[in-house]
Amino acid sequence: MFEVSPLQKLRSQYSPKIPKALRCGWKVIKGANTQAERDGGQIKEMFPHTYGLPMIHLEEGEMVNALKDGINIGVILSGGPAPGGHNVITGLFDGIKQLHESSKLFGFLMGPDGLVNHNYIEITKEIVDKHRNTGGFDMIGSGRTKLEKPEQFDRGIEILHKLNIRAVVIIGGDDSNTNACMMAEYFLQKGENIQVIGCPKTIDGDLKNEDIECSFGFDTATKVYSELIGNIQRDCLSSKKNWHFIKLMGRTASHITLECALKCQPNITLISENIQAKDWRINDVVNYMANIIAQRAAEGKMYGTALIPEGILEFLPSFRVLIDEINEYLSSPQGSHLEMVMKREKVRFMSIQLSEDSSKLLQSLPYEVALQLLEDRDPHGNVMVSKVDTEKLFVGLVAKRLEEMRIEGTFSGKFSTQTHFLGYEGRCAFPSNYDADYCYSLGRTAVALIADGLTGYMATVRNTTHPADECIAGGVPLTKMMYMERRGGQLVPVIKKSLVNVDGKAFEYFERHREKWALEDCYNYPGPIAFYGPRQICDEPTLTIRLELDSTTSFE
Amino acid sequence: MFEVSPLQKLRSQYSPKIPKALRCGWKVIKGANTQAERDGGQIKEMFPHTYGLPMIHLEEGEMVNALKDGINIGVILSGGPAPGGHNVITGLFDGIKQLHESSKLFGFLMGPDGLVNHNYIEITKEIVDKHRNTGGFDMIGSGRTKLEKPEQFDRGIEILHKLNIRAVVIIGGDDSNTNACMMAEYFLQKGENIQVIGCPKTIDGDLKNEDIECSFGFDTATKVYSELIGNIQRDCLSSKKNWHFIKLMGRTASHITLECALKCQPNITLISENIQAKDWRINDVVNYMANIIAQRAAEGKMYGTALIPEGILEFLPSFRVLIDEINEYLSSPQGSHLEMVMKREKVRFMSIQLSEDSSKLLQSLPYEVALQLLEDRDPHGNVMVSKVDTEKLFVGLVAKRLEEMRIEGTFSGKFSTQTHFLGYEGRCAFPSNYDADYCYSLGRTAVALIADGLTGYMATVRNTTHPADECIAGGVPLTKMMYMERRGGQLVPVIKKSLVNVDGKAFEYFERHREKWALEDCYNYPGPIAFYGPRQICDEPTLTIRLELDSTTSFE
Repeated sequence: MFEVSPLQKLRSQYSPKIPKALRCGWKVIKGANTQAERDGGQIKEMFPHTYGLPMIHLEEGEMVNALKDGINIGVILSGGPAPGGHNVITGLFDGIKQLHESSKLFGFLMGPDGLVNHNYIEITKEIVDKHRNTGGFDMIGSGRTKLEKPEQFDRGIEILHKLNIRAVVIIGGDDSNTNACMMAEYFLQKGENIQVIGCPKTIDGDLKNEDIECSFGFDTATKVYSELIGNIQRDCLSSKKNWHFIKLMGRTASHITLECALKCQPNITLISENIQAKDWRINDVVNYMANIIAQRAAEGKMYGTALIPEGILEFLPSFRVLIDEINEYLSSPQGSHLEMVMKREKVRFMSIQLSEDSSKLLQSLPYEVALQLLEDRDPHGNVMVSKVDTEKLFVGLVAKRLEEMRIEGTFSGKFSTQTHFLGYEGRCAFPSNYDADYCYSLGRTAVALIADGLTGYMATVRNTTHPADECIAGGVPLTKMMYMERRGGQLVPVIKKSLVNVDGKAFEYFERHREKWALEDCYNYPGPIAFYGPRQICDEPTLTIRLELDSTTSFE
Repeated sequence: MFEVSPLQKLRSQYSPKIPKALRCGWKVIKGANTQAERDGGQIKEMFPHTYGLPMIHLEEGEMVNALKDGINIGVILSGGPAPGGHNVITGLFDGIKQLHESSKLFGFLMGPDGLVNHNYIEITKEIVDKHRNTGGFDMIGSGRTKLEKPEQFDRGIEILHKLNIRAVVIIGGDDSNTNACMMAEYFLQKGENIQVIGCPKTIDGDLKNEDIECSFGFDTATKVYSELIGNIQRDCLSSKKNWHFIKLMGRTASHITLECALKCQPNITLISENIQAKDWRINDVVNYMANIIAQRAAEGKMYGTALIPEGILEFLPSFRVLIDEINEYLSSPQGSHLEMVMKREKVRFMSIQLSEDSSKLLQSLPYEVALQLLEDRDPHGNVMVSKVDTEKLFVGLVAKRLEEMRIEGTFSGKFSTQTHFLGYEGRCAFPSNYDADYCYSLGRTAVALIADGLTGYMATVRNTTHPADECIAGGVPLTKMMYMERRGGQLVPVIKKSLVNVDGKAFEYFERHREKWALEDCYNYPGPIAFYGPRQICDEPTLTIRLELDSTTSFE
């Protein structure tokens, strides 16, 4: 029996690299006061105590920032796992222990529910040491419950008091961090002396802005996916008989797909934001793919690779309309009729209930996909777009289009396919050195913010394309990233989700090469994440971040 | 634009470790004459010139084995790619160049077709250097054409003469190596002075016997799959809400699945050979899985991981009967009727044509799977069992069984699932150090056998659980591994495919722990293949081979 794998044993000895200021002592430097991203008036009204706070960064200070007494803090993992979560927790633990040996760290179990239902553990040195530089969120588990209601906060206060917890660190994405700010505000309004600090987590890479260079986990997840895409491309080129349609995880934004495309140089890459900007319909996408496949076939190349972002369907208006219409019918009094229709009649039955365009679209879909739309529902009865096998959907539609083109005389050849979905394979990988360093530093930074009495902040580490020494730890007020958005009929504060900027340097670089990559075989094979060896395989950040931020990197 | 990835650049500088005898000069030591595995009389009759040859091993010799003149050799990649193929070729190249600078290596393109159709390239130093220690078969491509007919051999002879090729090296699995021996025999019968040497390739790990410790690619592929299974297990334990059913590539034998189970310690592992030995029906398998899921659910664990070998359906007799009956109907005069039946009626239509048991089985299958059986056919019109989504098949059957158990009161809880198929992700990965060393050594060994004038041999490297220094290069007569088997109504010579030995040490170790792994969460997280770093992550062979061969390794 193996208690832990040889790699895990070795990785537990890795010391993450941290910004200079965190190494001995630090000074908290306050910058200019901030304003919300948009809708400042409304945000200020909702967050009177946490609005307008100054930017923070840490500089080297002379003294070791020891406290007279220990502090207790709590930590919550929220949402889907991302590599590096354990390192944030490890950073928190080492940070508070450095401040005072008697400090304690409590972990609330299985996400926000743990706080509300008072399920927690004390995270001891033994637990921390077992999880240093490991992937996953299994140390305390994660969950998707939204922490946003006063009753939840009140339940939280009970246990926080009982454990004498001074601050809660919430590790999550945009929504979890918005809620972190709501909790910070609520505590201040109630006169509770409990701070709340957020940390930017999500493999999707969509929690990023002028203050946050990257959400953690993006680096590792894209490296794992790129390893596999590279391997699939080698296979493709070795056998020359399949088109591989590869769907990549990523709820809305296409950052993951773009980064993997930059790393692997596949023949076809769909970027949802690009498709939206061009106002393409689903047929345009299908034509785009079919044309590349036909051009390659004309050169005798009946193989290739195509990357498809998981969220693409939401960017295609006709598909959106179809989903809305299905949802509307399902929630209507007649909606339950669908249940009574025999499986094999379902698609036809539903088609009759839809507008002409949607009806046509539904019937044009591969049968299995159409059925998925009608059968998989979320707890609210809505169609689960994320459950749709988008990669198979496009294989079906492209195959149909190629058959038309065959008749038109614009395609001849074979279209043999394999589909893949890369998602769960990357969310819990061992964090790359980038994520291990970044996350551990985020944890240590959060402690510095807490020690300074700050609340309603997100911990940040910037300058991450440079050696750790030159990285800058700090904090950004959560309200600074907010604006108001209509959701479910209500105007609510949200933290901006960053989509792929089609005018940005990373996309521009891709755009410049996509045609060449489409027709030639420029496949790149990144290989697995390295933890040992030369810097260029161990410590390099993503190409996205290098193109966007590092002016010293030049690419042709 | 990136010409090659940073890892590829670095890997090109790696010098594979080789057996002592290959480093300077060697002596070819001939052992005892050999006999066929079985049916010696018939094999001898078919292979009069290549039967009974002696075992070969290489010892250190005093002189450098230089030749007066260069030799030209040809190489063919046959079948599915496996990590390390390029290293065999690199070893061949370096080997013949060491013998004489004017030696030439020719690669026949896209598999055996390249020899028959005279498509080839000269493999130059530039090409070799670009592919050192890379994955894939893309240097010259691979193909599945069987090289077994005299006309093909004759076509081969033409081009081999033209290029003045003295020996052909065939890199392939059991069938390709059987055919290699047929070609060797044919050449001798025709008085052609062209040698044929085989190399044991297949990620499936089923080309192994007392003389061959492992087929190449098995080490790397199982390491890639185990990395991903480990990541999925972390995810599973972080979110605690899904059962992950993971299908693993491997045509017939379950070696890959067993090795991944040893490395990752998942909750459920199906080993086809074990199921066959117990004479289980498909219902027994479903019950076995459902019972573990129900037991875990009773402990509040609504999650887990299950490994399913791709080839399992062929080991289940009722499924075999179903497939045979479908094939029989399809090839009958009425068979074409199925084509005319509407998609949604197909399963019902076909059920009527089958025996009662098969009809029941077909109708019990998830609809999509039943349809796959009826719609995907190989060029001979047969059902393509390998195209069946076995992982979804078991999800469907297990879900149905759990619903019955819910009514019986023996299951309560959720059964939420995710399915995965790991295959193409691992066949073309950068070879691990084990495969890089092993394959390069095989290439160098093949050259030594060729230089000695041998033909009808497979190159071997043994003692691979020890440092390279202690490895033993040699050759085993291909006929030694053969016996007669009835295929397609004819008695033909075949090389024995090695299945998982359910009485062997590797399976025995698994069997001893499977119950504990089923109920507890003993997940192991191997992480990615390492090329740099301590020996325990860079150079360790598979657990299968260590358990089977290395008496110094002791596991609890």
